[in-house]
Amino acid sequence: MDKVILLVEDNPDDVELTRLAFDEAKIANRLVVVGDGAEALDYLFAREAHEGRDPRDLPSIILLDLNLPKVDGREVLQAIREDPHTRTIPVVVMTTSAEPMDIEGCYSLGANSYIQKPVDFEQFVWAVKQVGLYWLVLNQARSA
Amino acid sequence: MDKVILLVEDNPDDVELTRLAFDEAKIANRLVVVGDGAEALDYLFAREAHEGRDPRDLPSIILLDLNLPKVDGREVLQAIREDPHTRTIPVVVMTTSAEPMDIEGCYSLGANSYIQKPVDFEQFVWAVKQVGLYWLVLNQARSA
Repeated sequence: MDKVILLVEDNPDDVELTRLAFDEAKIANRLVVVGDGAEALDYLFAREAHEGRDPRDLPSIILLDLNLPKVDGREVLQAIREDPHTRTIPVVVMTTSAEPMDIEGCYSLGANSYIQKPVDFEQFVWAVKQVGLYWLVLNQARSA
Repeated sequence: MDKVILLVEDNPDDVELTRLAFDEAKIANRLVVVGDGAEALDYLFAREAHEGRDPRDLPSIILLDLNLPKVDGREVLQAIREDPHTRTIPVVVMTTSAEPMDIEGCYSLGANSYIQKPVDFEQFVWAVKQVGLYWLVLNQARSA
């Protein structure tokens, strides 16, 4: 069974556009959506609302917004990279910010890639398609 | 001026196919080719044959083969990630190996992405084009 894509995103419009882009790219992996940073970590480490989930069953990729309720995207990234269990999962930061400090900071924390979300609807869908194809078709993720 | 792409590759055929792929993708960044791991580090840190080069002028991306003469690709990756000057440059490992140990090892050392080189000529060119477009058009590299 294909592994899931974990989308950490609090904006419902961006969630819908991401679904649309993956449909168009014929990416069949199930999309798991969490709306804040705390739930992202709960999902990954099978805690709280996600208790009982097999924590060894990890996403093939994490698409991570930066400005999130509860726990910020930077803290989520740091927690992912600090735990040996999750540290090699590809993390693509997708955010509206193109601030050099954000870009540099995310790479320093171990982000694999940093994408500025296009404002234009069609460009947004195109960018998400490229992200999906690159990381799910071309890139070799670590084995399960 | 666009920053260079650093290709660390000892196989002349793969170098030529990479040039072809970037031409086809209309990627205009200059391709700097080094044939072994020692020269890759000399280039990055402006030493030996590359003394006098401005070491602040860093590539936008490094395409890194693993099995290289003199200094192995894994050691090159480790050296890049250990130096604060070079640690946030995106590194894409491109290799014939799909061994889980190689994949896991490269992510642990801080590779951004791991691509298994397709054996088929056309698929190889397609893969390199996608790599170029993803990292040079879509991805936000850290600022110079």
